[in-house]
Amino acid sequence: MVPGKALERIDLPVERIPDRWYNVIPDLPRMPEKYLDNRTGQPVTQRYMERLFTPAMVAQESSMERWIAIPEPVRAAYAMWRPTPLIRAIGLERQLGTPAEIYFKYEATSPTGSHKLNSAFAQAYFAKRGGHRRLVTDTGAGQWGSALALACRLMGLDLTVHMVRASYHQKPYRRHLMETYGATVRPSPGVHTAFGRALLAEYPDHPGSEATAVSESIECVHGDDGARLAVGAFSNHCLLHQTVMGLELREQLAIIDRAPDYLVSSVGCGSNMGGMVLPFVEDKLDGADITFLAVEPEACPTLTKGEYRLDFADASGEGPSVHTYTLGHEFVPPPIHAGGLRYHGCAPLIGLLRHEGLLDAVAYPQTQVFDAGSTFARIQGYLPAPETCHPIRAVIDLAAQCRASGRKATIVFCYSGHGLLDLEAYARHNAGELRDVEPETFTAEVAA
Amino acid sequence: MVPGKALERIDLPVERIPDRWYNVIPDLPRMPEKYLDNRTGQPVTQRYMERLFTPAMVAQESSMERWIAIPEPVRAAYAMWRPTPLIRAIGLERQLGTPAEIYFKYEATSPTGSHKLNSAFAQAYFAKRGGHRRLVTDTGAGQWGSALALACRLMGLDLTVHMVRASYHQKPYRRHLMETYGATVRPSPGVHTAFGRALLAEYPDHPGSEATAVSESIECVHGDDGARLAVGAFSNHCLLHQTVMGLELREQLAIIDRAPDYLVSSVGCGSNMGGMVLPFVEDKLDGADITFLAVEPEACPTLTKGEYRLDFADASGEGPSVHTYTLGHEFVPPPIHAGGLRYHGCAPLIGLLRHEGLLDAVAYPQTQVFDAGSTFARIQGYLPAPETCHPIRAVIDLAAQCRASGRKATIVFCYSGHGLLDLEAYARHNAGELRDVEPETFTAEVAA
Repeated sequence: MVPGKALERIDLPVERIPDRWYNVIPDLPRMPEKYLDNRTGQPVTQRYMERLFTPAMVAQESSMERWIAIPEPVRAAYAMWRPTPLIRAIGLERQLGTPAEIYFKYEATSPTGSHKLNSAFAQAYFAKRGGHRRLVTDTGAGQWGSALALACRLMGLDLTVHMVRASYHQKPYRRHLMETYGATVRPSPGVHTAFGRALLAEYPDHPGSEATAVSESIECVHGDDGARLAVGAFSNHCLLHQTVMGLELREQLAIIDRAPDYLVSSVGCGSNMGGMVLPFVEDKLDGADITFLAVEPEACPTLTKGEYRLDFADASGEGPSVHTYTLGHEFVPPPIHAGGLRYHGCAPLIGLLRHEGLLDAVAYPQTQVFDAGSTFARIQGYLPAPETCHPIRAVIDLAAQCRASGRKATIVFCYSGHGLLDLEAYARHNAGELRDVEPETFTAEVAA
Repeated sequence: MVPGKALERIDLPVERIPDRWYNVIPDLPRMPEKYLDNRTGQPVTQRYMERLFTPAMVAQESSMERWIAIPEPVRAAYAMWRPTPLIRAIGLERQLGTPAEIYFKYEATSPTGSHKLNSAFAQAYFAKRGGHRRLVTDTGAGQWGSALALACRLMGLDLTVHMVRASYHQKPYRRHLMETYGATVRPSPGVHTAFGRALLAEYPDHPGSEATAVSESIECVHGDDGARLAVGAFSNHCLLHQTVMGLELREQLAIIDRAPDYLVSSVGCGSNMGGMVLPFVEDKLDGADITFLAVEPEACPTLTKGEYRLDFADASGEGPSVHTYTLGHEFVPPPIHAGGLRYHGCAPLIGLLRHEGLLDAVAYPQTQVFDAGSTFARIQGYLPAPETCHPIRAVIDLAAQCRASGRKATIVFCYSGHGLLDLEAYARHNAGELRDVEPETFTAEVAA
């Protein structure tokens, strides 16, 4: 009558926090695409990059070292919550009647509730060590912004965050969190940059996107010599820092003697996907039968409907261009609640994996995604962020396929963050008020 | 230039989740006071208690067994997040320049973010096993309500929560969380009970209190034969379940070879205080020099300004009376943001410890408490719940005393929960809008 055991947890001791990040670039079938300077059409120079990023990040961006040591202060900061548990979702397996085993890498125990701190501490540390005074960044749902706000506070840096306007209003709690840590938060598009002012003049109801927020951040960095840009996804160095997840996962799967058949993750830009799958790329290239499955919103279907081509990384072309999957830098996704997935492009490394046939992708509408997240919360107890609801939606479908075929697959997904600061969206879902919005464009009505 | 190591974490493996709760009653200098039936003035009967609570809870309430086995399904549920880490706040020590060592038992990693799940899973399990269909409860800030909502969902029970009206409006996210887990949430005082209707008729702006919510819950249970009451604090059995914290803490302190000089905790009713200190009562009675320090809001100063006397446990006398510290059951605390601490009385076991001279107590105004919480978040990175800000405030003062005296004390406080769902209060604090309110009474203006 009382339900059976709902989960199994595979922990690592604190000593097993990885001491190095894995850089996939030397192991790829070909080099990732070069960033181009939009003013010249030529590959960006060292000088261009170092005006934008801290020198350490520029070096990591194109490093050919397979392993990069994690500085001790960053590892010490990771000890706030790492290693994160790998959890088997026995309750969900039972509910779905599947022979598959479903595991998730649970990143929600971090102080700000998501995997974003893995890179935030690294970028803040190197900025401080490099003598910079301030970081500037963009944030979608606010997961990255709040992580960087904490990291900057602990490392002793100022921070300005350009928060996508739709999320700024949908998710006031994340803004309060950033401000409590001492960051300055501005809605994007906003009045503090020429780009933002121009956009608002033309579209007063513009909901913003990660691309507009990046453009404003770059403009802001160019106006302050002591400032550098920090990015929560996209860049090779950010995905590099996130590999602590995949590295721990490898150890945890070894403990229970499992090899993954599916590694599933949401993709906005690709930071949690990259962090989980990059340490498994070599296995896949060596012939292991692992499916890397990216899950994205139908409202922003970069990998399923985008093109692999050269495009701006931001909305204005103030930053570099790069060859990757894109919906076009002028694409403004409708203001769905998975704010972290509202980006027109994706990380070049993720684009490359997709282009090389190493990465599968699927898209779901928002209502199905919240259904899956609610189901998961009611069975497993953990309330997932809207971004995290995406892989859960896909995993439920994979598990059903395994039920049909009888396959005892090992499915692992990245539980990138909790949804406690997204409860307004759950409340709307509970009330049946969420709608699926078409990706064509946005209107003031949809934004409301 | 980069700040030094900010923390040290002492973990226990998942196998070390306690397999029994510690019942302090056989070890106390005298028995806790008996509950009295207000209709007869006599000690409550078994029949009275079993109409209110599940039989297992009634048995635990007055058990003389020192150790009570934790049922395997409850232990399996604890594995969602237990054992919780013990963390040394090195950053705070450094900032305060204190020779004291400051540790905290970090309960915020639970899926609902606080220690309340420790008892929620136990009460839901025994209710389900006892054949009951539904639990009814009260909640202050919503920490207990959301914990019980999750536990009831996983154990397969219906749940009705009476949420203190002030928190119902201040903390909509916690209400959304309970509703996402499937609970029915009503503001208290509310229109679903005769008591609530009568109160609203007289005081339409009544902000409610834990006492009004308990009265409504009891009325609700009396109207439904399949329902029983669950309580997030107060009762002996609830404090019993919380001893998993203190039991783990003992092990963790043994690992680092420390004995506690101070155990510090917030007290609303006493569940986190009890859970942490009860397993150390015998040491104290045996002569160990440990100070148990309860920290409460000046706006609801039960232990510092209340009397030890017989009083109603709820607002209406629908439930039992008991001898403990109280401000009087008609006392309505002003709507401060630490909603979990707005109770006129305290758990009989906590009252007894205080009365026997085993428990010290101190009270702080809300603004000082939020200052301490913000300071802690900015130094240690973890954002504490308003309730948890209370012991932090006291620990900062203790550490300063140690700096003055040169004492290398070992101070441990209970980090009962995170403040991610209390960010509206932090936002008001950041904006300088929080006020310290006198405990005399409430007005519509203060409630606004």
